[in-house]
Amino acid sequence: MNSPQNYTNMSKAFSDLQLLEFLIFDTHRSEELFKEEYYEHLDKEQALAMIASAHALAERDMFPYYQEMDGNPAKYDGNGKVMTHPQLKVIVQNAAEQGWIGASASFEHGGMQIPESVNNAAQHIFQAANNGVQGYLGLSAGAARLITNFGTMEQVERYVKPIFEGQWQGTMALTEPQAGSSLADIKTSATPTDQDYYKIKGQKIFISAGQHEACDNFVHLTLARIEGAPAGVRGISLFIIPKYRVKDDGDLEYNDVFCAGEYEKMGQKGYATTHLVFGDDDNCRGYLVGEANKGLTYMFQLMNEARIGVGQTAASVALAAYKAALQYVQERSQGRHPSEKDPEKDPVLLIEHADVQRMLLTQKAIAEGALSLACECNKRYDLEHVLSGKEKDDNHLLLELLTPVVKAYASEEASRSASLAIQVLGGYGYTLDFPVQQHYRDIKIMAIYEGTTGIQSMDLLGRKVVINNGRALQLLTKEISKSIAQANEYDGLKPYAGQLEEALNGFIAISQHLFKYAQNNELERYLSDANVYMEMAGHMIVGWQWLKIGTTASQLIKDNKHNYTKGFLEGKIHTMKFYYKYELPKTKVCIEVLKEDSWLTDLRDYNWF
Amino acid sequence: MNSPQNYTNMSKAFSDLQLLEFLIFDTHRSEELFKEEYYEHLDKEQALAMIASAHALAERDMFPYYQEMDGNPAKYDGNGKVMTHPQLKVIVQNAAEQGWIGASASFEHGGMQIPESVNNAAQHIFQAANNGVQGYLGLSAGAARLITNFGTMEQVERYVKPIFEGQWQGTMALTEPQAGSSLADIKTSATPTDQDYYKIKGQKIFISAGQHEACDNFVHLTLARIEGAPAGVRGISLFIIPKYRVKDDGDLEYNDVFCAGEYEKMGQKGYATTHLVFGDDDNCRGYLVGEANKGLTYMFQLMNEARIGVGQTAASVALAAYKAALQYVQERSQGRHPSEKDPEKDPVLLIEHADVQRMLLTQKAIAEGALSLACECNKRYDLEHVLSGKEKDDNHLLLELLTPVVKAYASEEASRSASLAIQVLGGYGYTLDFPVQQHYRDIKIMAIYEGTTGIQSMDLLGRKVVINNGRALQLLTKEISKSIAQANEYDGLKPYAGQLEEALNGFIAISQHLFKYAQNNELERYLSDANVYMEMAGHMIVGWQWLKIGTTASQLIKDNKHNYTKGFLEGKIHTMKFYYKYELPKTKVCIEVLKEDSWLTDLRDYNWF
Repeated sequence: MNSPQNYTNMSKAFSDLQLLEFLIFDTHRSEELFKEEYYEHLDKEQALAMIASAHALAERDMFPYYQEMDGNPAKYDGNGKVMTHPQLKVIVQNAAEQGWIGASASFEHGGMQIPESVNNAAQHIFQAANNGVQGYLGLSAGAARLITNFGTMEQVERYVKPIFEGQWQGTMALTEPQAGSSLADIKTSATPTDQDYYKIKGQKIFISAGQHEACDNFVHLTLARIEGAPAGVRGISLFIIPKYRVKDDGDLEYNDVFCAGEYEKMGQKGYATTHLVFGDDDNCRGYLVGEANKGLTYMFQLMNEARIGVGQTAASVALAAYKAALQYVQERSQGRHPSEKDPEKDPVLLIEHADVQRMLLTQKAIAEGALSLACECNKRYDLEHVLSGKEKDDNHLLLELLTPVVKAYASEEASRSASLAIQVLGGYGYTLDFPVQQHYRDIKIMAIYEGTTGIQSMDLLGRKVVINNGRALQLLTKEISKSIAQANEYDGLKPYAGQLEEALNGFIAISQHLFKYAQNNELERYLSDANVYMEMAGHMIVGWQWLKIGTTASQLIKDNKHNYTKGFLEGKIHTMKFYYKYELPKTKVCIEVLKEDSWLTDLRDYNWF
Repeated sequence: MNSPQNYTNMSKAFSDLQLLEFLIFDTHRSEELFKEEYYEHLDKEQALAMIASAHALAERDMFPYYQEMDGNPAKYDGNGKVMTHPQLKVIVQNAAEQGWIGASASFEHGGMQIPESVNNAAQHIFQAANNGVQGYLGLSAGAARLITNFGTMEQVERYVKPIFEGQWQGTMALTEPQAGSSLADIKTSATPTDQDYYKIKGQKIFISAGQHEACDNFVHLTLARIEGAPAGVRGISLFIIPKYRVKDDGDLEYNDVFCAGEYEKMGQKGYATTHLVFGDDDNCRGYLVGEANKGLTYMFQLMNEARIGVGQTAASVALAAYKAALQYVQERSQGRHPSEKDPEKDPVLLIEHADVQRMLLTQKAIAEGALSLACECNKRYDLEHVLSGKEKDDNHLLLELLTPVVKAYASEEASRSASLAIQVLGGYGYTLDFPVQQHYRDIKIMAIYEGTTGIQSMDLLGRKVVINNGRALQLLTKEISKSIAQANEYDGLKPYAGQLEEALNGFIAISQHLFKYAQNNELERYLSDANVYMEMAGHMIVGWQWLKIGTTASQLIKDNKHNYTKGFLEGKIHTMKFYYKYELPKTKVCIEVLKEDSWLTDLRDYNWF
């Protein structure tokens, strides 16, 4: 109210280049990637320069429009169009021009072949600045990657270039009205023809970026069922379905892909969420990607990346909310210390209150811890390009285990973090004048996108910790033990290394305890508390990240060869201690809950509710 | 999207009359109030009939407009007016006509003299149906009560009747731009005149219901500082400041109270939150209430009721969100049980999934547990009218202790509860088509209204558990021990009684541990983890409520003289077990955190952030 301009025009605090350098290059040592052939065209300095230019772009084109896009949501025009903010086109164009849609694609496919560790630093900045608009870029990149990985050369040539150039929008079209999260129940049909295409008929809902004003064409990577295919997930195929198909002469013609509506949402209001209808006039062509009936396998490669991306987005938005809260408490004075009895003394800055510091450190611990876990995943993703053989398999397996964890931990905890940002601002935090309430609203969807927290939890307990006879769990244990050993080299870190070891042992023991249900084929029972198991895993694994961070900071301080400020590095160690005091112990309650053999669920008779 | 009408037109599930009867009359035995002279004009049957008619009113006038008011927020017209939804006037009029503004006021003051236990059952229904509009009613009731308790008979006659009739709106005007939560820094000035009024000058922000279209006049119960008054909270006085003052001939004239704006908020959008300017033309008169410099003491009586009210509102909104989620999962089928490998089998109802049941039971445990605690407070509030002497003092002391707990527990946990309601609905839960996202947005302010969670926590640890040498804490211990003894009469409840005893002992021990900081005059240190202390107290005290509920249900089942369904009573016992398995153990982590002597706060040097 009465604000001369909106907040995001007045503040620059949405991300932290120092933090990114520290996490990517010091904590996760991504510099070693540049020694490998695939990435040898880059070095750390260049990478940092690219990240800095992404930051400049975000500062100029994205962040100032964050609140404005919220106030002017994407809107369906009643006839196939979704009206979006004019700035969106500017952003997509400029980001494409800097290369941020195809950044991590190979040179061969027209990309810049930079590691995800670097690309995702830029995406993190975009997510922190204006998370909805980063969605448009990220989806295009993901759709293009599905085509480059599994499509024909012809498909790559036809679709990927205009996507990388920001002319065409790529999307993922999975969800259907009757199926929701249950992809086995997808009904969109693909009828073979004697041409190179299938005839498509069906509806998809909740399709992000499925229609908007910033692109000329839309390339929907769509799951559908070829006539006669097996029931369930084994009968799903992947198709490219453009809104306008390319004729032999290169001209475009309408492909009977109609946007039937746009969902109004409580957050991410600038991000169009559409309802698409394929083939209502029986004239929609879909082009098969890869082999028939393998669609879900292909899609899951993208889905896994997208899950890391969603987790990272949650961390990024939480970090932006933290930065906004941090700025506020350093500008506003209010109240006095409890021991100050003189009401004529000047009020102190909000940051001087113990409870405010507790709220800020909680936010910092969550946001930076989750971001570090995303960096861990990005690095492991990059390693897939440079490792081989067993090392590569192991790395992949560990990444598979970490994926649902970064997604679930970050999205659930980021909500708590943003809620604290609102608390720090008090009543002002609840008003549209400040961005923290928007962060809070935007973040909530992260626990739903690409599989709810419930689904991530079942993925972790039901699949990831048990595949290959628990190999992924062993690899995780090994990695964490390595970090514990490294931390033990610093006297000041020993207590925390000990705490993490205890949490790790608890995690392993309770996993074994639960496995007996699986072995007895009591699957419903086994998975019933998967969510609690995920909570425990998240707190423990982010505790691991904080120990890594603390060790890195301790080493930099000891070696005394770095450009960070003393406060920056000490702040990392301090936040680690905070995490170990306030957050890590939560694993113990989770273990207590999971140990309890009583089962309070009744899948058939549920008249208790 | 595409919804033919809005959700709240299609659903009736927002509250639960059976639950209210069970909590008020069986669990908290409010029937005994009717034996007392002050309330003897009422009986249980009449009370239930009143509650039922409140429900009919809410169903007809309030709930169908819940989403509509969100979509058409209160809006400042640029010139002193705040435009509100036309239905608001209908609601205020009809609620006033049924007596719900002055319901608990004495006959002497024009009220219906009904217990808060009954009045707040009606308010709960309004809060669950449309929490913003209940705010208008509740504020009027509160402002009127300040006048009846501390004002002159003339003031009562002048202001209270039109407030009870819904013609005039009562408000509480505390917060100022420079002071925020720090009431000691209030600057609004009151200059004595030789008439019966003071000249007022100042600004108040975040004044709920401070200007709208449903009432003709506004009566602001305002804190201001009389010229020359002592600094700090001891120099604050309470004034009645009407927007239009009553001339001797009974006509109204403008009192120089200008609404300078309205805050746009992320939730409670139908509830006007105003910025008021008093005396810009030096023509604003304020009428002192009670004695000079005692304003804060008076206001705190209302504030304490308001805190219970905010806690109850949070519980009510969480209950409404739970009911909406519960309806959804019984209508929508999706997915199959993990052990079902045949994809051609029909999907099962969402409620059949174990994780969905876990989410629903968590919501139920939070919402009903917090509501029970509000009922406990309401009952103790009513007892103030019927007890005397030491019994009355003890009852008051215990109520004082419970007040910040119901406020903080309910508002924090209700956010978690509503978040789970969104999760249950998945992507749909995030769209404006369903009310759960609105519940989630609305609830967030409850942790800020009438003192943030941080302030409630400092109130609990810094004041309530230590006043009268810890007398309130002793009283709480006694009450809880009584409930434990009662539960121990039922074999099936013994394990839970034991768990609560353990939690209670932990609570007492950690309180003693912390007191040593207070005794050493380390006040900042003492209060630094007040929030964690509050979390522990909340989980333990709501655990007490669930034991009471479980005992009540067990007794009703045993006596077999009741009209509840078997599922209803078993559901109470089941939810108690759920609470004891998943929620109560959280007290242990809190204790672990509080035991830790390390202090990670630095009030002066904070360059870690």
